[in-house]
Amino acid sequence: MRDRLLAAEKVKAIDWRDDALYLLDQRVLPFTHSWVRCDDAAGVAEAIQTMVVRGAAAIGIAAAYGLALAVRLRSAAGGDWRAALEADFALLLRTRPTAVHLSWALNRMRERLDRLRSHDDPGAALAAEAVVIHESDREANMTMAQLGVDLIRRHQGNVQALLTHCNTGALATGGVGTALGVIRGAWLEGMVERVYANETRPWLQGSRLTAWELAQEGIAVTINTDSAAAHLMKTKGITWVIVGADRITANGDVASKIGTYQLAVAAMHHGVRFMVVAPSSTIDLSLASGEEVLLEERDPRELLDIDGQTLDAQAFNPVFDITPADLIDVIVTEKGIVERPDTAKLTQLMCRKRLH
Amino acid sequence: MRDRLLAAEKVKAIDWRDDALYLLDQRVLPFTHSWVRCDDAAGVAEAIQTMVVRGAAAIGIAAAYGLALAVRLRSAAGGDWRAALEADFALLLRTRPTAVHLSWALNRMRERLDRLRSHDDPGAALAAEAVVIHESDREANMTMAQLGVDLIRRHQGNVQALLTHCNTGALATGGVGTALGVIRGAWLEGMVERVYANETRPWLQGSRLTAWELAQEGIAVTINTDSAAAHLMKTKGITWVIVGADRITANGDVASKIGTYQLAVAAMHHGVRFMVVAPSSTIDLSLASGEEVLLEERDPRELLDIDGQTLDAQAFNPVFDITPADLIDVIVTEKGIVERPDTAKLTQLMCRKRLH
Repeated sequence: MRDRLLAAEKVKAIDWRDDALYLLDQRVLPFTHSWVRCDDAAGVAEAIQTMVVRGAAAIGIAAAYGLALAVRLRSAAGGDWRAALEADFALLLRTRPTAVHLSWALNRMRERLDRLRSHDDPGAALAAEAVVIHESDREANMTMAQLGVDLIRRHQGNVQALLTHCNTGALATGGVGTALGVIRGAWLEGMVERVYANETRPWLQGSRLTAWELAQEGIAVTINTDSAAAHLMKTKGITWVIVGADRITANGDVASKIGTYQLAVAAMHHGVRFMVVAPSSTIDLSLASGEEVLLEERDPRELLDIDGQTLDAQAFNPVFDITPADLIDVIVTEKGIVERPDTAKLTQLMCRKRLH
Repeated sequence: MRDRLLAAEKVKAIDWRDDALYLLDQRVLPFTHSWVRCDDAAGVAEAIQTMVVRGAAAIGIAAAYGLALAVRLRSAAGGDWRAALEADFALLLRTRPTAVHLSWALNRMRERLDRLRSHDDPGAALAAEAVVIHESDREANMTMAQLGVDLIRRHQGNVQALLTHCNTGALATGGVGTALGVIRGAWLEGMVERVYANETRPWLQGSRLTAWELAQEGIAVTINTDSAAAHLMKTKGITWVIVGADRITANGDVASKIGTYQLAVAAMHHGVRFMVVAPSSTIDLSLASGEEVLLEERDPRELLDIDGQTLDAQAFNPVFDITPADLIDVIVTEKGIVERPDTAKLTQLMCRKRLH
């Protein structure tokens, strides 16, 4: 499946070339395709904060490149550049609070920095590390796609309708995506009749990004309002809801796009299986449960701006919610799958001894 | 409470004066307040179809006035005007398929027509009947508000947070509203801390209409995405979800705005009480269950039009869904309340003998 996934690939959103980071501006997709060039950590931080780049894995990758840019600039400036670099770390880290990939990727960059030898070129070494993070995410996506497809086939081999939320594809990761990677794989295997994409208010990642991404590859996709999901489960024969995650706590609770929790409740009510697809870097064993996750709220204007005018009203705009582990059938990671997740199973997945 | 509800009244959307029907254009609220004048059935039909006027009761009232206009014009033209009037009936009836009020109100007008005496002025008699339908709806709203508030108080007397969907207020009825009438009443009784209004995609009745209507009367209201409802139930102490209905079948299944079903599933999961408020004219004993209700779909462009551009994608845009009776705690009508609705209870409500 790997080769077919790669052959079908059409969308790329993160491009590292000429020692600069180019990001496909997701705020204006799919109507406009414009790239934002970032040359320093501040540029990358702004791109993350203003959602030029979004999606848990993608912001981690972008932050890693941002730190590589910072290391090149700081080390060229000389002096105690490592101390100065702390400001860049902090700047990148505070751009978005919920997804763990940001801190995970920055910590990996810090570890690489700590392993620098005296003759290494810091800028080149850290850029190489960011490329490794990016490439590893691509590979993780491939592995998860295969594992997810195997799982779908195991339960039901025939062609079926799938439902997804937000955007978890090439625009949200370094490769074919998490949930969308599984969906792409299932489509290539002839197992998908139709993908239903929640439009995903207020930012419309579903209708603007997911529908566009899937249509590029000829995958049959239909957009629906987020409100229609339960009605679809009842009337359209949905067999799986497949979503991504921004942070998974030790007990298997999942922080993900607002609405994921409501979907999981509806899926449980209808006996529809619920799959979370996320690289193991999403799993944060330092938090016992979802109650400890900081859930970002964004500007209420994301709800209040309508047709170029702004409603004079109050709005509550949480960006994420927590889906408790007991509503999740399976978490798919590149390290393996965890059915009916709990603390013991996730700890075992993350701490598995590799004997060969 | 009746007097206080009337005293607080700020919004009026249906105005019959100078032998014409004036409708507040709901497509452009709350940014623009413009009235559409209708002088004949065709004008009213177009206003219903294009959603100048919306809301189950409001479209029934508008259709009644539309028929009154038609009767005046047809009877003035002479000849076999009653036969010619059938075209107006048919035109008004086919404007929207799901809400039963349209046929209910038109049938009432037809019965009045059948009772016309030779010396009656047909136009004046039918206009008077439309006014009665309008006024009865206002009175029904008052009664339902009182019954709903009594119910809330019976379960929990303290100040609480309520959640509603779509718009069921003065813009959707002839008076203070169905679900919003209860919410208004509960606010006046000091029992409401905050109202959460689902924005209600794709037409945004919640954020454009409900939030505006409630704010006019100083009621604390916060808009949220439809996706956030379950998260609100978990984190904001919501005690009741209160919604309206477009058609209630004999067994207590409720056809209402898309997303109502998903809300009911989430409410059940959280042990939040679920109240449907609708005049008895919403109850259609001719349909055994929700499976028999024709659910309207509207133009996919309602989902695809974004910031003045149109997505090149497929969309599924059902306007209503069915909430099964077993997810509903109580249906409030002006004839009384029905807890845990079923066919026996609804039949009894509708066929109750009035002995005095």
